[in-house]
Amino acid sequence: MSEGDFGRVAILGVGLMGASFGLAVRSRGLVQEVVGYDLSESMLQCALERGAISEATTDLEKAVSQADLLVFAVPVEIMPSLMESILPFISPSAILTDLGSTKQRIVAEGARLFGARFIGGHPMAGSEESGAKAGRADLFQGAAWILTPSHPESEVARLESLVKALGARPLLLDAQEHDRMVALVSHLPHALSFSFSQTVSELSKPALAESLAGSSYRDMIRVSASSPQLWSGIFLENREALLASVVAYEEALHCLREVLQTGDRVALEALLSQYAKPQ
Amino acid sequence: MSEGDFGRVAILGVGLMGASFGLAVRSRGLVQEVVGYDLSESMLQCALERGAISEATTDLEKAVSQADLLVFAVPVEIMPSLMESILPFISPSAILTDLGSTKQRIVAEGARLFGARFIGGHPMAGSEESGAKAGRADLFQGAAWILTPSHPESEVARLESLVKALGARPLLLDAQEHDRMVALVSHLPHALSFSFSQTVSELSKPALAESLAGSSYRDMIRVSASSPQLWSGIFLENREALLASVVAYEEALHCLREVLQTGDRVALEALLSQYAKPQ
Repeated sequence: MSEGDFGRVAILGVGLMGASFGLAVRSRGLVQEVVGYDLSESMLQCALERGAISEATTDLEKAVSQADLLVFAVPVEIMPSLMESILPFISPSAILTDLGSTKQRIVAEGARLFGARFIGGHPMAGSEESGAKAGRADLFQGAAWILTPSHPESEVARLESLVKALGARPLLLDAQEHDRMVALVSHLPHALSFSFSQTVSELSKPALAESLAGSSYRDMIRVSASSPQLWSGIFLENREALLASVVAYEEALHCLREVLQTGDRVALEALLSQYAKPQ
Repeated sequence: MSEGDFGRVAILGVGLMGASFGLAVRSRGLVQEVVGYDLSESMLQCALERGAISEATTDLEKAVSQADLLVFAVPVEIMPSLMESILPFISPSAILTDLGSTKQRIVAEGARLFGARFIGGHPMAGSEESGAKAGRADLFQGAAWILTPSHPESEVARLESLVKALGARPLLLDAQEHDRMVALVSHLPHALSFSFSQTVSELSKPALAESLAGSSYRDMIRVSASSPQLWSGIFLENREALLASVVAYEEALHCLREVLQTGDRVALEALLSQYAKPQ
């Protein structure tokens, strides 16, 4: 068995991210057994039918007791309590990670409960769709995959090998820096897209807007179809960092509006040029 | 010759839009001759080499005097003066249209100068890239193509046939309604993307942000690479309608921020659910 391989993996939560992880490791033959745990039997059934897991259970002890690698893939706000629940059942050699969009509270809980064996993770890939039905074996292909080990003696090298084997790019970051950066590069774009969708609904019949849509509209509105349940949890979990990004964004947009109001062509072109990427 | 065909077409301005129009009509064999006019000899050369035009000239009279269809594809703010310049040279049976992103002033000038023979047009397709080198024969495939005839006796049916032959969907709109809708579905997304790019530059090293980027980041930042020259012209040409969209957007984002600040999960989820598309 090479460094990135694990004999038996437990995926806790088989929605979009968990199912994609299962499909990715199984399609590459990196793992012998993948057991999926979920509260929803229909989600487990879908994950099983799609081949994302080789076994399904709603029994937490059964899911985790024999696993070499545990992957938490539930909504971020319920992750800490799930971590606490599995503590009595896990093998002393198991490695634990997660696929959550926020890291500070999860990594703090992981370190408290599991010490160096928990290494936070966040693949920078997703979809506006949700559930096991939307899982894709290639979801992580080419994506950055942030790892946030909190102990110097953690087995991060094994996880890095696995991440590379899935075609992703491992990147080590501190949990606080993760949350600050991800507020900017992921949570802010989601907030902006939700607000764009709201503005379209207010100013137009959405069907008319859709009928006229070009690529700038489609890109701007796509992620607003993401799950409101999942994303309200993520926004609140990373509230302070997201608020800082939103405030900075409001200032940038306000500045653009002010220049537009003056009608000053030279100033407007200078503003847009300042930040536009070179052609 | 079928209804949508024209023997000789003149494209005035062979940047992204003009070159794409030339490639689209020539690759489908819809037109015998396509003459390109531009102030830039290198742009003409590129359009000629790529096959977007069959003839190139910097002589306006030569470009337009024999043309059955004239297509204005220059930046919106210089279109009215170019329309005035060609008036003495055009054939009395020529039809005229444009590919500009704003319509009210252009359509008013077209109606004044050419009467029913001018029919405003706006294909809802583009790219953050610019110039003839970025032209694509399939740019308009599947796109809405707004036509804004201002005279009841205009030959809009011939243009509709041509638009359909290019694989696009013709849509008739009044010029004022066009400008209001396009402020929302195209100009606002561009303004939001420019402001996002600015915020990223302020809060992060752009290279770090890029290295972490997932699809929500890429979708949000893509159009900020668009030409600042072109887009400052478009923004100012449609300033009032764009300002109304920006103000509505600022209110929507402010509302999201306020709910986020309260930390009220139920209210936040309700807000995001209200506008999220059904899964």
